[in-house]
Amino acid sequence: MNTDCCKILGIDPGSRITGYGIIMKNRNHLGFIACGTIRTNPKNSFSERLLEIYKGLSEVISLHQPEVSAIEDMFVSHNPQTALKLGQARGVAVIAAMRTEMKVFDYTARMVKQSVVGYGQAEKSQVQHMVKALLGLSKVPSSDAADALAVAICHANHLGNQPGQMTT
Amino acid sequence: MNTDCCKILGIDPGSRITGYGIIMKNRNHLGFIACGTIRTNPKNSFSERLLEIYKGLSEVISLHQPEVSAIEDMFVSHNPQTALKLGQARGVAVIAAMRTEMKVFDYTARMVKQSVVGYGQAEKSQVQHMVKALLGLSKVPSSDAADALAVAICHANHLGNQPGQMTT
Repeated sequence: MNTDCCKILGIDPGSRITGYGIIMKNRNHLGFIACGTIRTNPKNSFSERLLEIYKGLSEVISLHQPEVSAIEDMFVSHNPQTALKLGQARGVAVIAAMRTEMKVFDYTARMVKQSVVGYGQAEKSQVQHMVKALLGLSKVPSSDAADALAVAICHANHLGNQPGQMTT
Repeated sequence: MNTDCCKILGIDPGSRITGYGIIMKNRNHLGFIACGTIRTNPKNSFSERLLEIYKGLSEVISLHQPEVSAIEDMFVSHNPQTALKLGQARGVAVIAAMRTEMKVFDYTARMVKQSVVGYGQAEKSQVQHMVKALLGLSKVPSSDAADALAVAICHANHLGNQPGQMTT
């Protein structure tokens, strides 16, 4: 893979809101391309909501044609039922990316925060602020979109150094 | 949907082994069509294993063209990390079915056992035995394939009565 120039899709999966962000790394420059959220309809069945995430991400991938994707390893709560739902959303996100033959890299929230803010325990607002600064955005992105952009930035920072983890 | 005659795909998702089973319901008769397991390569990354499940199920669906699918609501362990992995496998299974516009129905393990064995706390070996008897198989299917056939039988038993749950 060309590590000098690469279009990266970052995904922050969630069963209610899935954030996505696309950036371009060009040597040492990071450029913003797009970001947003996929909000699932709470009136739909859970399976239908998974399909909404799948279709939403597939549209984003089809539109922007990223070369690689990075997905946040989600916070594992103490509640297995919550973990089961989050896991389903994450599995759908992984497949939406992998079925297009994109490689998927995983980064823990700690690695993402370390990479973007320089501190693994940083607050969400710090992540939003640094994402805005690093990408030269005119306004602060929403929390979910910022998290997705942050994982994409984290992957960009790892490119050319050590490759990101390809496993969860 | 025609409830007299219907080809049903049952899925028992798992990150290591995913069971599948296909049956035909024709009025009150249940006919066996196929069953098997998708075993993922433990040497691959977790994302790659999710893709193996997706591709394996997509092949089964493409080959047998079931009209509806039923997926077991997996056991939620006390370990959120395990639930997260199981959830990802389940999300992939749901998408493999739903992307073909099949409806997906969910049944808890208790509902499946109640429907197949008449007792919600039945042992795995009882499920295997009853699946063999109900479908007139010449030998007992593997545990994972039997669980998948059992959830398909459970859905068949609910057809025409009350529709299965369409949510997790």
